[in-house]
Amino acid sequence: MKPAIAISIGDLNGIGIAIALEAHDAVSQHCRPRYCISRLMLERAAALLGRAIPDDFETVDVPGDFPIRPGTVDAKSGRYSYDSFMKGVALCEEGETAAVVTLPIHKEAWMKAGLAYKGHTDLLRKHFGAEAIMMLGCEALYVALFTEHMPLRDVPDAIEEQALTRFLCDFQRETGAEEVAVLGLNPHAGDNGVLGNEERIIEKAIANANAAAPGVFTGPVVPDVAFTPAFRSRHRYIAAMYHDQGLAPLKALYFDEGINVSLNLPIVRTSVDHGTAFDIAYKTPPRTESYRNAVAAALKLAEARAQ
Amino acid sequence: MKPAIAISIGDLNGIGIAIALEAHDAVSQHCRPRYCISRLMLERAAALLGRAIPDDFETVDVPGDFPIRPGTVDAKSGRYSYDSFMKGVALCEEGETAAVVTLPIHKEAWMKAGLAYKGHTDLLRKHFGAEAIMMLGCEALYVALFTEHMPLRDVPDAIEEQALTRFLCDFQRETGAEEVAVLGLNPHAGDNGVLGNEERIIEKAIANANAAAPGVFTGPVVPDVAFTPAFRSRHRYIAAMYHDQGLAPLKALYFDEGINVSLNLPIVRTSVDHGTAFDIAYKTPPRTESYRNAVAAALKLAEARAQ
Repeated sequence: MKPAIAISIGDLNGIGIAIALEAHDAVSQHCRPRYCISRLMLERAAALLGRAIPDDFETVDVPGDFPIRPGTVDAKSGRYSYDSFMKGVALCEEGETAAVVTLPIHKEAWMKAGLAYKGHTDLLRKHFGAEAIMMLGCEALYVALFTEHMPLRDVPDAIEEQALTRFLCDFQRETGAEEVAVLGLNPHAGDNGVLGNEERIIEKAIANANAAAPGVFTGPVVPDVAFTPAFRSRHRYIAAMYHDQGLAPLKALYFDEGINVSLNLPIVRTSVDHGTAFDIAYKTPPRTESYRNAVAAALKLAEARAQ
Repeated sequence: MKPAIAISIGDLNGIGIAIALEAHDAVSQHCRPRYCISRLMLERAAALLGRAIPDDFETVDVPGDFPIRPGTVDAKSGRYSYDSFMKGVALCEEGETAAVVTLPIHKEAWMKAGLAYKGHTDLLRKHFGAEAIMMLGCEALYVALFTEHMPLRDVPDAIEEQALTRFLCDFQRETGAEEVAVLGLNPHAGDNGVLGNEERIIEKAIANANAAAPGVFTGPVVPDVAFTPAFRSRHRYIAAMYHDQGLAPLKALYFDEGINVSLNLPIVRTSVDHGTAFDIAYKTPPRTESYRNAVAAALKLAEARAQ
């Protein structure tokens, strides 16, 4: 029997529902997708898209009745995307689905709806009271972020030995990675202290983490070397100290296929790594590569947990 | 008549001389290379490499007599690479060559030789008393660095309106770029101030620079969007606020072909964008792509100046 996966439908004014419909046959080959959307809203979206709803398109009801306004930041649509996500989370908590895969929400729409979360990961962190780890990438290269949505100015002081040690151990345990490259903070990884000293802290955290999982962690790696072809060919898992250090090179290399994974939580959650693309919603058929990869990764992670 | 180009030979314990010999025929099709090395040292290196010296391999004498020790950090070899570079600079200053192209030096060898420069660009800045701009990349994508070898902690306070305005104007004038994408400092370019405020300063500098060159400068651009395929296809010149912001994505994309260009100086200087590769020196034939691109870029820049 194929595992059931909850699909949270994202902001209905964006491209999420078109992706779900377009990729339904493909993902159904590997799992039983359960879409968190009401029949009413599904029919409304399908009509706007001019698409038929597949016979085996299984929905889980999420109450709501509002007009879809393509490409518009809207409180009702924002609230609905939140409700759809929380339904998906509940299905996982109840053991009804093996994972939840999320289509994109719009942060401003959440703000308009009075939902004070920075995004899915922030919400999950608060919901579960757990130190979720944000990992992005694809099978060729995964990057975990030690700090995320924080002014660059605050990053150096956030490099703290105990927290970083815990982060590295959690990241390794959750992924089962046999090797993890840990980036330095400064250019040239500090060049022996000439260009900064945070690498001393990073070295200690690496030593602590290697005491728990011998030989797994390498670093501090020079940040602008870590993403070169030769280095990447030997290291698939990278721990980045801050947002753009990890994501700028990652998105340069693997933009279309990239996904977002929340590690270190009671449930399995993966996501597309793109936004609502309001500019093309209900106009241009969206790419589905990231979504299909998110479903595949969710299945893999769920299977690893089940063992 | 082909333009003359000075070639500074780099650290003779590294891969520079092998690159010069290997690529001689190729670069000679476009220029008259003048290698800053003595016959004695050239013959010594060629013998170690087991290579013949081409008949038309024109040298400009740089006195020196020391044993070549492949892969070794050595004060004499460090000093010689400095002398070779300064000879190349002198040839440019005297109008004997149109540009100087540099092969890699080893910073520790310079330190051992008592040469207190961070590298070629730092030396040029002091030699000419000029605000040299470090630009890296290739024809597909060039990145200029507003701050370079500085601890990450010091970067936010270095974002200053007047200096950034001058940097942007100089960068555009020197390259003739018709459009320049200017990166923000913070994740999501600060997300309207939620994730940092330096983007206000960057916005002002962009406005100032656009007053001088209308419509050229775009930004502050979200740093992890700037290197995605769609954005790159429209923007070939990027101004980065700090070292790894620009170089990590650049080297992820264009490692082998990348070059280093010093802008805003009385002379034209380009360079390979790799090091001495001591691990393969005199053992494995090195790649010459970066060097050949550096020569081609030097010729193009020299020609633009002559007009």
